[in-house]
Amino acid sequence: MRCEVVAVGTELLLGQIVDSNSAWIGEQLALAGIDSHFQTKVGDNLARIVSCIRLALERSDAVILCGGLGPTQDDITREAIAEVMGVPLIRSPEMAERIRALFASRGRQMAANNLRQADIPDGAVPIPEMPGTAPGLICPVGEKVIYAVPGVPYEMRTMVSATVIPDLQRRAGVSAVIQSRVLRTWGHTESGLAELLAGRIEELDVIGNPTLAFQASGIEGIKVRITAKARDPAAANAMLMAEEARLRAVLGDYVFGVDDQNMESVVVDMLNSRGWCLAVAESVTGGLVTCRLTGVPGAGEVVRGGLVAYASDIKFALLGVPEGPVVTAEAAGAMAAGVRKLLQADVGLATTGVAGPAEQEGQPVGTVWLGLALGERVEAEVVRLPGDPSRIRQYGVISVLNFLRLRLLENSPDEDRAGRPARG
Amino acid sequence: MRCEVVAVGTELLLGQIVDSNSAWIGEQLALAGIDSHFQTKVGDNLARIVSCIRLALERSDAVILCGGLGPTQDDITREAIAEVMGVPLIRSPEMAERIRALFASRGRQMAANNLRQADIPDGAVPIPEMPGTAPGLICPVGEKVIYAVPGVPYEMRTMVSATVIPDLQRRAGVSAVIQSRVLRTWGHTESGLAELLAGRIEELDVIGNPTLAFQASGIEGIKVRITAKARDPAAANAMLMAEEARLRAVLGDYVFGVDDQNMESVVVDMLNSRGWCLAVAESVTGGLVTCRLTGVPGAGEVVRGGLVAYASDIKFALLGVPEGPVVTAEAAGAMAAGVRKLLQADVGLATTGVAGPAEQEGQPVGTVWLGLALGERVEAEVVRLPGDPSRIRQYGVISVLNFLRLRLLENSPDEDRAGRPARG
Repeated sequence: MRCEVVAVGTELLLGQIVDSNSAWIGEQLALAGIDSHFQTKVGDNLARIVSCIRLALERSDAVILCGGLGPTQDDITREAIAEVMGVPLIRSPEMAERIRALFASRGRQMAANNLRQADIPDGAVPIPEMPGTAPGLICPVGEKVIYAVPGVPYEMRTMVSATVIPDLQRRAGVSAVIQSRVLRTWGHTESGLAELLAGRIEELDVIGNPTLAFQASGIEGIKVRITAKARDPAAANAMLMAEEARLRAVLGDYVFGVDDQNMESVVVDMLNSRGWCLAVAESVTGGLVTCRLTGVPGAGEVVRGGLVAYASDIKFALLGVPEGPVVTAEAAGAMAAGVRKLLQADVGLATTGVAGPAEQEGQPVGTVWLGLALGERVEAEVVRLPGDPSRIRQYGVISVLNFLRLRLLENSPDEDRAGRPARG
Repeated sequence: MRCEVVAVGTELLLGQIVDSNSAWIGEQLALAGIDSHFQTKVGDNLARIVSCIRLALERSDAVILCGGLGPTQDDITREAIAEVMGVPLIRSPEMAERIRALFASRGRQMAANNLRQADIPDGAVPIPEMPGTAPGLICPVGEKVIYAVPGVPYEMRTMVSATVIPDLQRRAGVSAVIQSRVLRTWGHTESGLAELLAGRIEELDVIGNPTLAFQASGIEGIKVRITAKARDPAAANAMLMAEEARLRAVLGDYVFGVDDQNMESVVVDMLNSRGWCLAVAESVTGGLVTCRLTGVPGAGEVVRGGLVAYASDIKFALLGVPEGPVVTAEAAGAMAAGVRKLLQADVGLATTGVAGPAEQEGQPVGTVWLGLALGERVEAEVVRLPGDPSRIRQYGVISVLNFLRLRLLENSPDEDRAGRPARG
């Protein structure tokens, strides 16, 4: 089974919008085991949309059309499909009623134009999900099929996940369930992780299921994706669990989370389970550590706040950093201890370093000291980070959060809590 | 002259990378007055790349191939072009030498593989710019032409701007120069701006040159793009200047910057020219205001730092906010005055509000108070912002920076400086 994606919209060709929808659909197709060899963008032009659909149906068994289902005269995806199918558009009374009801339920006035969205090619079937006012369509063309979904990402994703992918799998005779889980890692290179897992990778090359894939994701670390194929969801999940356990046994603390977890949400959860609260002192990262932490839902329980001590004299006056150079282990440690005291937290975290463009205090660009005050222990660690100033800041944020994560792991909430630091 | 874009790479089809290169090239083509009707993504497969190039050359006069020029066996764009041209690949001694020299100059070992990048289709001409190790190519196919550029965005952009677009314009016989300028606005809706400019838009519809276009850019405000066509760069620039002056006369302070300027760089420049320094107290924005300001090159001269007073008791203890509700005008003003004093700045800026998901102190989600302490004046203003917590924070940041900008405009550095506040 081969399926192409055609994204419709002149704004995509003009570069006013980056087409991230096609990338997302491509990922879903790959996960579902459906081949996809081409993706096309085309403008709001009837003849050209028609030619793209015809070409896609020549090369593949199915095509997902994304966009051009809105209520305005520019939105001509429905017309193009009708032309390819060789049928007229027919107003669906059920769909018209559904659109009317949707507007009424939101207390909004419906323009007459909106009823154009109820005009569907004769023989097409509406996609059951309808998160917005644009109906999605399943349009049979002989043995092949066209799916039409809206360009609004949320609406598109709902329809593709719930209807398009299952329908494609049914047509492909795929009775298997395919599920995947992503292990998120920080602190090792892609080739380093591959070396650690070399034995297991060789075994899986023979077994063939589950499969492993690495994905370097820059400031988000390196992802290891496990994909399992099984007869039902429970069996697929059991395979994922077993493989995750195997990989974790090898990768250990490099794994900081799974799937949608990120470093800040993991750290907030760990603090929460220990009943500890945090304060942050930032120089080189300029507020970004505090910003990412406070962006986690529920962060208010554990994040007291932060001080961005950008000017050196603020570090001296408010954080008790000894006057002198500030890109040092001593300064990072003093900042962490100082902000913990100033903001009355259990744990203090700090960054000080050189984001560039020029070196500072004789330290090269990319030098970042991470400071931590936890219990009796005040410590610092240096990292050397690559890239431009913005990237150095971003890497600095995840590095300092990972530093905190590793130390929190050593202070498990299940262990003796006598070691818990007093507030203040 | 019509030109298509073909992006090469299996990782694009699998959704591991979003293809933002094609969007950028599409924008450049549009600005240069060159039509582009289709964009295609194809994987690292020789037959399929060849079929995409042939199709693009049937439909259009030129094709820009992006990606697949690296040194590994996956990188087969050169082979595909040679097949379409019906010529062999020939190793270019000059190019081989250039690649060798590049590695030597960076003190890096060159793998033998890298010399594959010196294999170019017979009859192709290298693109002069070469910011990385991958040569770009101009490949004539009868009257038509294939351009090959690397997928690394920086390398691609350099080659497209310096060589591909000018070469396309020469082939198209476009002797006119097309230039554009973006006026960046904040504080009014797209339809509101269009209404203000209705008279001028009508005039320009008749004149036809320059043209105006609006682009809503979410948390970045609304952009008004002026595009001018003229016989030479000086004449195009003069048209842009004249039109900019006309529009500014109507839009006034809604315009906060042009082209690559953003709200934080504008505010940092304004503070700099006044010789004033700033401190920020943040609650709802969690450090994001300080983070964006400190990301501006040269911010160290004017940004002293910030206090993220996420917990209410920090607002009371360190900023002198009276105990009680904190989503109020009084709290926002006190935070601004308090952080100005704490961090010894000329100007204090503050945010306090409700990002959600739940309301707070009886204030609905999206309520954000902006505080400002400048000279004798301590004031606050409320905004009601839409969206999820992340979007409310982002809107809050640009709102408070715009609040500061408008007040700084009232305190022009050219005016009597007696009103300048004392430090402390």
